[in-house]
Amino acid sequence: MGIHTYFQSLTDLERIIRCPGKFKFQAHSVSEHSWKVVQYAKTLADIEESNGVTVDWKKLYEITSSHDYGEIFIGDIKTPVKHHSLELRAMLQQVEEGMVAHFIDEHIPDEFKPIFRRQLREGKDDSVEGLILEVADKMDQVYEAFAELQRGNTEKEFIVMYRTALIKIKEIKLHCVDYFLKHILPDLVREGTRSPIDIETITNEALSS
Amino acid sequence: MGIHTYFQSLTDLERIIRCPGKFKFQAHSVSEHSWKVVQYAKTLADIEESNGVTVDWKKLYEITSSHDYGEIFIGDIKTPVKHHSLELRAMLQQVEEGMVAHFIDEHIPDEFKPIFRRQLREGKDDSVEGLILEVADKMDQVYEAFAELQRGNTEKEFIVMYRTALIKIKEIKLHCVDYFLKHILPDLVREGTRSPIDIETITNEALSS
Amino acid sequence: MGIHTYFQSLTDLERIIRCPGKFKFQAHSVSEHSWKVVQYAKTLADIEESNGVTVDWKKLYEITSSHDYGEIFIGDIKTPVKHHSLELRAMLQQVEEGMVAHFIDEHIPDEFKPIFRRQLREGKDDSVEGLILEVADKMDQVYEAFAELQRGNTEKEFIVMYRTALIKIKEIKLHCVDYFLKHILPDLVREGTRSPIDIETITNEALSS
Amino acid sequence: MGIHTYFQSLTDLERIIRCPGKFKFQAHSVSEHSWKVVQYAKTLADIEESNGVTVDWKKLYEITSSHDYGEIFIGDIKTPVKHHSLELRAMLQQVEEGMVAHFIDEHIPDEFKPIFRRQLREGKDDSVEGLILEVADKMDQVYEAFAELQRGNTEKEFIVMYRTALIKIKEIKLHCVDYFLKHILPDLVREGTRSPIDIETITNEALSS
Amino acid sequence: MGIHTYFQSLTDLERIIRCPGKFKFQAHSVSEHSWKVVQYAKTLADIEESNGVTVDWKKLYEITSSHDYGEIFIGDIKTPVKHHSLELRAMLQQVEEGMVAHFIDEHIPDEFKPIFRRQLREGKDDSVEGLILEVADKMDQVYEAFAELQRGNTEKEFIVMYRTALIKIKEIKLHCVDYFLKHILPDLVREGTRSPIDIETITNEALSS
Amino acid sequence: MGIHTYFQSLTDLERIIRCPGKFKFQAHSVSEHSWKVVQYAKTLADIEESNGVTVDWKKLYEITSSHDYGEIFIGDIKTPVKHHSLELRAMLQQVEEGMVAHFIDEHIPDEFKPIFRRQLREGKDDSVEGLILEVADKMDQVYEAFAELQRGNTEKEFIVMYRTALIKIKEIKLHCVDYFLKHILPDLVREGTRSPIDIETITNEALSS
Repeated sequence: MGIHTYFQSLTDLERIIRCPGKFKFQAHSVSEHSWKVVQYAKTLADIEESNGVTVDWKKLYEITSSHDYGEIFIGDIKTPVKHHSLELRAMLQQVEEGMVAHFIDEHIPDEFKPIFRRQLREGKDDSVEGLILEVADKMDQVYEAFAELQRGNTEKEFIVMYRTALIKIKEIKLHCVDYFLKHILPDLVREGTRSPIDIETITNEALSS
Repeated sequence: MGIHTYFQSLTDLERIIRCPGKFKFQAHSVSEHSWKVVQYAKTLADIEESNGVTVDWKKLYEITSSHDYGEIFIGDIKTPVKHHSLELRAMLQQVEEGMVAHFIDEHIPDEFKPIFRRQLREGKDDSVEGLILEVADKMDQVYEAFAELQRGNTEKEFIVMYRTALIKIKEIKLHCVDYFLKHILPDLVREGTRSPIDIETITNEALSS
Repeated sequence: MGIHTYFQSLTDLERIIRCPGKFKFQAHSVSEHSWKVVQYAKTLADIEESNGVTVDWKKLYEITSSHDYGEIFIGDIKTPVKHHSLELRAMLQQVEEGMVAHFIDEHIPDEFKPIFRRQLREGKDDSVEGLILEVADKMDQVYEAFAELQRGNTEKEFIVMYRTALIKIKEIKLHCVDYFLKHILPDLVREGTRSPIDIETITNEALSS
Repeated sequence: MGIHTYFQSLTDLERIIRCPGKFKFQAHSVSEHSWKVVQYAKTLADIEESNGVTVDWKKLYEITSSHDYGEIFIGDIKTPVKHHSLELRAMLQQVEEGMVAHFIDEHIPDEFKPIFRRQLREGKDDSVEGLILEVADKMDQVYEAFAELQRGNTEKEFIVMYRTALIKIKEIKLHCVDYFLKHILPDLVREGTRSPIDIETITNEALSS
Repeated sequence: MGIHTYFQSLTDLERIIRCPGKFKFQAHSVSEHSWKVVQYAKTLADIEESNGVTVDWKKLYEITSSHDYGEIFIGDIKTPVKHHSLELRAMLQQVEEGMVAHFIDEHIPDEFKPIFRRQLREGKDDSVEGLILEVADKMDQVYEAFAELQRGNTEKEFIVMYRTALIKIKEIKLHCVDYFLKHILPDLVREGTRSPIDIETITNEALSS
Repeated sequence: MGIHTYFQSLTDLERIIRCPGKFKFQAHSVSEHSWKVVQYAKTLADIEESNGVTVDWKKLYEITSSHDYGEIFIGDIKTPVKHHSLELRAMLQQVEEGMVAHFIDEHIPDEFKPIFRRQLREGKDDSVEGLILEVADKMDQVYEAFAELQRGNTEKEFIVMYRTALIKIKEIKLHCVDYFLKHILPDLVREGTRSPIDIETITNEALSS
């Protein structure tokens, strides 16, 4: 009943664990992930700005901070399901959006409804801000999967996650992606050399695919 | 890859937590829940037998032990989503079944495929065994929600869960349901009298609804 | 106090951790173990049936699902103690059985007492069902220990557990044991090749011992 | 060595627990707290804007998302220490700032150094954005402490935390504070009526102090 | 293998949880318990000394710090088992001592064997030091059980534990017991007044029993 | 208000985790660490005595058991901060001592004040007992860091911790240090040979530095 309901619901995302089911040495909650996405996006936007690109910081703030809020209603639907079929994927997104809309209708005071509708929309559009969000979101998959591989986690899912996220990132045309591939990723790969899994080869294959 | 892939996947259900997002004093994994359903169902079937009903123990074994195996693929889809609309619910079930079918096709040796297809089907049909499974599954919701309410958990979701499960149970025509309502539920309610939440009233309202 | 006391006690097994004391990357509760034993046993029994053996599914259901219920009273007595001396082992079993008997006397209504006495008895006899339970129970030790070795756990206890369980399994004369050794174990060993511990050699030594 | 070191360090805040030592029903990591502060601040800024106040969203983004980054170096120094003496408090802040400066000098590439120095500075100044951060930070103490009190946590520290945070908030002159006191806090207090602790009285005393 | 084996084994007690099976808001490891016993015993001995009693601090050090080391071998055998019958209790103690003796024989160098045999013996004899250990050990049960009751834990086991420990303590003739009953226990009971469980009445009944 | 406040505060150290922020396979609470320090110190003192050195067991008991009690007030201040500058280090120690003094003034009855002031002082002086405490404290860093390295933890902090602790130990002139270096450390290093990190080389470098 009011903004309080929204504020109080935020803590639910601390109890939704990413990548449920699979063994991991360190679990991450959706809110921990969300905070890192906010942080990555900030630096990625700084890189864009330093290359002369104009960033709408209010929009970037809104879409990065809330990008997984809908998981409060549908949980972290496991990635294989998301991609099982385009039909299902569309249906799931429809449901998530329907439940967010329902939540706003029921709990958010009228004067804030338009603001919340804008903030809780799917933010991954083709604007600079939408693309930065996509890169930041995938970058956290790279970091999460890397940390597991580095410690010797043998679940194949983390190799797939690492690979897929890298491929998604490299296809996005942004200055910050160039910076990531040239200056950040090599440092990360270098740290993985002690891993029982050959992270360097996986990385190279993903980048040249 | 054979039966090994199936056996190894079972442990994934230890890392999928029921009712994700909501605060709870004690979390339960899907495999812990599954074991309790197996146990309740055994006693419920004993009660049916003692009332002269014939129980197909092989079928009961198969459907109770595997009834949530599909959650390995789609996680514990949050109850609100399940019931958001009949259309979505049907779609989700279709997906879960599709993924189970896909798993069997890919990993289970040909000679076992028919067995696994039968075992991993939706078991809640109108047979005695299917109804017992439904009662046992809901009974665990009663016990899980009760334990939270008894310890003072104020999340409304557990009141809803307790109430809804009781209503579902009382509508099923089985001797074991009569036994549960007459001999088991009163003992449970009696233990809840120290709770800050009025469990007795909630129970009575559910039973007379 | 009736069946309620029994149903409510089941959740205690979620708080008893197997192999207490030893470091492990993933802990398993007794109820999680119990569910996997139920699942393995089902497939093992399917293999027996497909070889023409008759399985008493009700008995199998009863003994697999309840086989560690007694640990509610005595905890997961550490394996070294169990095997310290035959005298102690016998004494411990006597105590566990005494406490189970006491529980039934005190809490289970008269009309169910014979049923519970049968269900909560030690199930590992020389019948097909008793032998399947023994195989399924040991198979979970193989899987639990394997997962630790594969992730680089250096506690010697897991090598001992893996080895001892394999030796126990191979000595049992069942069709499903042949199937396990020929079709399941090789897949498992193949997955362990990236482990810092030489699982293949340990396996071969156990099988030829 | 570069931005990678910074990105990788972010996950450390998932392992620093707020309010260490005290018993709590739900623990929160510093990164979970940080994400909620980002979210509250966004809505608080929306309220300011709807009252005609101009918000610098880039600045707000920078100071809210990074406001506790320094805890990577000094941990969550317990509140009593922070306030033990003004001398110590100043010294601690000096140390935290020194370590952040040292981190930037050592790891951040020259072209980003000015950006990181600005972002990782103490953000709680007298600007609208600085005040919003202060309100959002204290608001999370209100929510965290409330959740403990509501569940019956008897540690006095949470009463003190709730009270002190409320007093800090009400002294800040912002439209969003008025909104919080008039529209959000009453909803929260209403939910606490079942608590064994008299949250309403504590709230009223804090507001009239 | 030498003293190293002993030193390394100490960490095992961090993974053995006291009172396994029962629901508790806060779990305690055996090593956490052991440290508190060491601390209580120190103050109890100070009270004895201030009443003119001579304390052998070396003996007190040895028996308090090691008093639960044997649980490394047999786990935290659940209290009900310990008291099930005098016969079993004696047998269990015999086993624990046998396993400790075996460990010393196998791992401790000859020159330290007598020292370890003395230190790892059962310390609860009738000397001042032995009685102080008994009081300190029971005092931790009082504190552990009290904390659960105060937070509204409804497991009957904690009422029994609190009561039984108090009765054991009051029967021991030591100055520090007088001090505990007169100066410490009343402060503790006063803190429990907000609990849904009537701790004061339970305390009074135990003391007058 | 009295000794009760002190006794009850002890449990807080179970909720303060050593080395916060850094990834670790096994976390240790300050009270678990404290208990191991008590245990190591006991054996180290036995070694001194067997070399003819007189040990004041009461003093050793007091300083080892309480050596980290002050962390109740300031948490486990991260090691890098402690060593950032001599000025800060002195300031932090001053604060910790101030808060301990304040606690004693406020809560400990007058007749016990001198005892608590002596017990809760910094114990690492140049006496045999103070040096044994220093060795025991560093020895636990060796064991904690070793266990992480052995399991493949790639955080550099644990290499630094292992190295630094070894260097500190070898500089202390005690019989027990000789024994540790000659008889205990080699056994430990031998166990680390399967680690992906070259523990033997790190050890040798530390010892010859």
